[in-house]
Amino acid sequence: MPNGAAYSRRMGRVTRRTPAHRIDLGDPEGPRVVARPDTVAVEEPLEVRVGGTSLAVTMRTPGDDFDLAIGFLLTEGLIDAASDVRHLMHCLDEGEDGRPTYNVVDVTLAEGVQPPPASAARDFYTTSSCGICGKASIDAITTRSRYAVAQDPLRLSPDVVAGLPAALRAQQKVFDRTGGLHAAGLFTGEGELLAVREDVGRHNAVDKVLGWAAREGLLPLAGHVLAVSGRASFELTQKALMAGVPVLAAVSAPSSLAVELATETGMTLVGFVRDPRMTVYAGAERLGLTAG
Amino acid sequence: MPNGAAYSRRMGRVTRRTPAHRIDLGDPEGPRVVARPDTVAVEEPLEVRVGGTSLAVTMRTPGDDFDLAIGFLLTEGLIDAASDVRHLMHCLDEGEDGRPTYNVVDVTLAEGVQPPPASAARDFYTTSSCGICGKASIDAITTRSRYAVAQDPLRLSPDVVAGLPAALRAQQKVFDRTGGLHAAGLFTGEGELLAVREDVGRHNAVDKVLGWAAREGLLPLAGHVLAVSGRASFELTQKALMAGVPVLAAVSAPSSLAVELATETGMTLVGFVRDPRMTVYAGAERLGLTAG
Repeated sequence: MPNGAAYSRRMGRVTRRTPAHRIDLGDPEGPRVVARPDTVAVEEPLEVRVGGTSLAVTMRTPGDDFDLAIGFLLTEGLIDAASDVRHLMHCLDEGEDGRPTYNVVDVTLAEGVQPPPASAARDFYTTSSCGICGKASIDAITTRSRYAVAQDPLRLSPDVVAGLPAALRAQQKVFDRTGGLHAAGLFTGEGELLAVREDVGRHNAVDKVLGWAAREGLLPLAGHVLAVSGRASFELTQKALMAGVPVLAAVSAPSSLAVELATETGMTLVGFVRDPRMTVYAGAERLGLTAG
Repeated sequence: MPNGAAYSRRMGRVTRRTPAHRIDLGDPEGPRVVARPDTVAVEEPLEVRVGGTSLAVTMRTPGDDFDLAIGFLLTEGLIDAASDVRHLMHCLDEGEDGRPTYNVVDVTLAEGVQPPPASAARDFYTTSSCGICGKASIDAITTRSRYAVAQDPLRLSPDVVAGLPAALRAQQKVFDRTGGLHAAGLFTGEGELLAVREDVGRHNAVDKVLGWAAREGLLPLAGHVLAVSGRASFELTQKALMAGVPVLAAVSAPSSLAVELATETGMTLVGFVRDPRMTVYAGAERLGLTAG
């Protein structure tokens, strides 16, 4: 684990002040221009290595990098549990100022855990985006997940789902300052918030939450709900599935492939969750609705 | 080029109807549930091959796939102009229904154009996400672009920038039906709209617009403005730079690395463009403002 000072430095990099001009053309007395620093969300590359070999690079907001690495390996099917990882370390790569960037995490797998194949980086990316056209890709991912969410007996009230975005937003500290981050939150079936993570990449926010859950020994996430601040893509639905989450709730629209994947795997997918309204695209029975 | 019927079929796949339940908890007489089909944005994988070898897979909304392939190759630095491509074809891969999916595009490069290296797929992904930690990545991309946007003499009025999102939105036909698509639009310095593309992936929307511009012989896009419906990430800023676009306007927040890249390359970056307000993060002189 990183020491306290390093960790605190990383946390300090979640936002950054930058010079900016704010323009307001709406003033009847003429355009107003104010030059003053603005706060933006930090975006930096994180390279994930396994046993010293580069596996992937993701553009992420620094912080919770170990959870991100664990969540990423988990949702890509490269590990089954946090115990498959023996340890994680930040490489001491240096930036131009000669200080560590903390932008490389090296993962050492536990003994007996199969390392990614030699063609790992390429296989990973292909897997991440399906790599197989159309319908076949859904079959592939369905086969790959260890967890059968279709059999999850969770039932939850639409009222609980309606309340998730507000609970998520209440915890979105950085978004309030920058407007630039996606959030993902893990909730119990009763709507209790367990963890929230924010990131410039929505897949990173989800990986950080699921990686945290793996580290806490909560897998599979039967009976839990994953809520995301934006849209529900195939990728996010796939990640939830890989961690055994039976319900995905999104503030915005789902894609066609997200709906298909949820339908075929028995996951509940709710979109446009905007209290008091929402639209249920799959698994309506968990909300007490008959299939339509 | 695909024949008319095929093209029309592809266009038909931009949205899809799916069964859904709409729930409204706000009715004083009790929750209302309506089971009726909803329209969602189509998301399907597109595999880009060069000379028969798989280069990348992206999750995209079908349509304008040839422009997407050209834009992708261009903004990744693998080609310099549309003329570097001899022809493009959709592979006739079949879905479960035995009909072509149109989810694979094979690119044949023009004679004399260097094919991607043997390690292409991996190199590409590494490049796409930087692959080099922190500052070095910005230097790398700055070197790679053929175009020096810093020297672009374009000057434009803040009024023109303020009007871009409305012009973009007016053309967003699919968003109105699904709420699920990102848009990118190419404008002249006077605010005239040249092309709009929508996609579930914002990088795809940008690649489609820039690929169209390349095919139209408009590169470098000196004097032009690229507008995007969401946030400005490093990746989108990098893509604009690779096509020689001097101004990037985003409806939402920029990331730290987008601001840094724009600042170092002399690109103008405007965020939170919400008429009558906006915030200028880099290249304020193009809007007639002195650096702050």
